Amino acid sequence: VEHIVKSFDNELAALDQLIAELGGLAENQMAAAINALVKRNADKAELIRAGDKVIDQLEEQVNEQVIRLLALRHPVAEDLRLVVAALKISNDLERIGDYAKNIAKRTPVIAQSPPLGALTSLKRMGAMVSEMITDVPDAYLEHDGEKAFDVRLRDEEVDALHTSLFRELLIYMMEDHRCITPSTHLLFIAKNIERVGDLTTNIAEQVHYMVSGSLPAEARPKLDETATTGLNGLEGA
Amino acid sequence: VEHIVKSFDNELAALDQLIAELGGLAENQMAAAINALVKRNADKAELIRAGDKVIDQLEEQVNEQVIRLLALRHPVAEDLRLVVAALKISNDLERIGDYAKNIAKRTPVIAQSPPLGALTSLKRMGAMVSEMITDVPDAYLEHDGEKAFDVRLRDEEVDALHTSLFRELLIYMMEDHRCITPSTHLLFIAKNIERVGDLTTNIAEQVHYMVSGSLPAEARPKLDETATTGLNGLEGA
Repeated sequence: VEHIVKSFDNELAALDQLIAELGGLAENQMAAAINALVKRNADKAELIRAGDKVIDQLEEQVNEQVIRLLALRHPVAEDLRLVVAALKISNDLERIGDYAKNIAKRTPVIAQSPPLGALTSLKRMGAMVSEMITDVPDAYLEHDGEKAFDVRLRDEEVDALHTSLFRELLIYMMEDHRCITPSTHLLFIAKNIERVGDLTTNIAEQVHYMVSGSLPAEARPKLDETATTGLNGLEGA
Repeated sequence: VEHIVKSFDNELAALDQLIAELGGLAENQMAAAINALVKRNADKAELIRAGDKVIDQLEEQVNEQVIRLLALRHPVAEDLRLVVAALKISNDLERIGDYAKNIAKRTPVIAQSPPLGALTSLKRMGAMVSEMITDVPDAYLEHDGEKAFDVRLRDEEVDALHTSLFRELLIYMMEDHRCITPSTHLLFIAKNIERVGDLTTNIAEQVHYMVSGSLPAEARPKLDETATTGLNGLEGA
């Protein structure tokens, strides 16, 4: 039996490798889900489900690697923060995978409905968060607090786009009741994308914590206003 | 300067105490949010926001306690699993707090709209998940895998109620376009409650992992069908 005692650095490198892989997969899944949605292609959406299983397994591997590192290496200070951040980041990336899967699950209803103009805005939102998903694991791997901070700021644009899309979809529903079911699913899809943006900012905050030992002092400005949005009188029109 | 070296057991007891407190607060916040919603009371909903800050601070304390335990005590085996589970459970409880806050944020729109029958079903869903939130931290504190398993099963009822409520709300929207905005917010509130149910099952799975060293073998049956739900022809009516 070959008995390998890895060095601590090797163990950390293995953890980094897993996070990089998980980040890449989460980004792919999100991009594929948006693409299937915009093309209204239920077959492509079906493929997302299989990919999500791989993400779940990778998160499980990160968990095991973290437990092993903690049990055998007793990291302290920045190393300990890095290991704990990896655990949380893997959980956030797994949740991004879940949102991609949920978008894919809603795609057959959209594919069967007449095309809605809102898909163009969803495509833009999707492209924005896809880039954010690519950049945050990079910030983690490079211990780059500034890159992480930049991702946090970009989430404001995602929130603003979400708020205007929310209004747009309510108007479609008012104007034509055949739009109600597909628009409802698009509202949830838009919310999913907005949540993915939030998760990338969570990851960015973990990177900040890892690099500096504290979470960002200022709460992130939160510009998603959909929870308080109505149409101010349009309802009675 | 008084220098206190706490025993490992004391440190664990302090962690348990924080989780118990966090669980109690999450349950209170959720119950208060549902109550304010059902009474259509925007003032009471406003109070939820302040409570959420306390939850966030408690989660931060759990994080610090976990980091301290890992750095100073180097737990292994079941103790290590317990500490990692506490970290994840505190994150899930904090997210439950976020959902309560989101329900509260949507309540003013509901308070300004005519009352909808769907509030009764939301109240039932809310009562079900409130009980689940009470029971899972207990299962953690008592290391009770069976109690945790029971919570997991109860989530099926929450999912079933959510699916029927989703259909009910779509019908309201079809029948009367003045219902579209409030019903949209109620759809998101129902989804929030359903997600809180999912989070309690996450916690239940962490308890299983903590007690046994592995996650439950069988995937939890997932009965929430809203992502694939339309109204089968009713749209054209």
